[in-house]
Amino acid sequence: MRWTEYDSKVCSVARAVEVIGDRWTVLVLRDLFNGIRRFDEIADHLGVARDLLSRRLAKLADAGIVTRQAYQEPGARTRYEYRLTQAGAELRPVLLALAQWGDHYLAGPEGPPTGVRHENCGAPVHLSVSCEAGHNINDGRLLRMIPLPAARRRGAHS
Amino acid sequence: MRWTEYDSKVCSVARAVEVIGDRWTVLVLRDLFNGIRRFDEIADHLGVARDLLSRRLAKLADAGIVTRQAYQEPGARTRYEYRLTQAGAELRPVLLALAQWGDHYLAGPEGPPTGVRHENCGAPVHLSVSCEAGHNINDGRLLRMIPLPAARRRGAHS
Repeated sequence: MRWTEYDSKVCSVARAVEVIGDRWTVLVLRDLFNGIRRFDEIADHLGVARDLLSRRLAKLADAGIVTRQAYQEPGARTRYEYRLTQAGAELRPVLLALAQWGDHYLAGPEGPPTGVRHENCGAPVHLSVSCEAGHNINDGRLLRMIPLPAARRRGAHS
Repeated sequence: MRWTEYDSKVCSVARAVEVIGDRWTVLVLRDLFNGIRRFDEIADHLGVARDLLSRRLAKLADAGIVTRQAYQEPGARTRYEYRLTQAGAELRPVLLALAQWGDHYLAGPEGPPTGVRHENCGAPVHLSVSCEAGHNINDGRLLRMIPLPAARRRGAHS
């Protein structure tokens, strides 16, 4: 059966981009990974409208990706900061994959603006693809997507 | 220096999502990876408006991620199909990372709808994070983003 016969929405990629498939959302996640947690600081850093940021963060909270915590500085009103949950922390490979691709294809003559290092040893970090039999897979043509029992054929409308 | 002091746009993640940080674009890439190449088939499979798809594909072509090729079936007018370039093929880890996260956090009781297998041996494929010193890194808290010479401080406006 060809992939066109499967329901495009019954797919982990489609479900994931339904939640985080938005430019601003990815940048919010990046800032959270870099330790920027306060609403005001994220808004200022991204240069994004506060109501848009508020909607994006509410969606991330609904999806269980961030939690919101109130904080208050002396003499100021209550404000909010955000932290990644375990589910949020596990989005790190998505950002690493984007960074790795951007480093390779979109860096200028000076090279990539940032790097990722292993805290324990300082060595550069990269993502790799391997299989459970222990093979490293550098050639994407050796990856095969297969349908599992939860896949769905498209409805009669198609 | 805190990350808030660096220019949010001078960043490989920001540059990458400028090109592919859109829900439909990611689904187009997914279909291309699954061998669906013809404009008409992609439009039908995604259920997306043809003008929107056309704009997304033109942007991917401008970014060097796909190439467009004409084809013609007997008696029909010229139509187009799209293929991933090398730069496009190297976006595979982004989709694998999204799929892996969606498999874990967004699958229903039946489990993930699709799996990725190594063509040569049939074993399930996954992404992993490691450093050049050979350590596997399972704990994202051990990743540290560092600025490199191409990083830019934010302008005086901030």
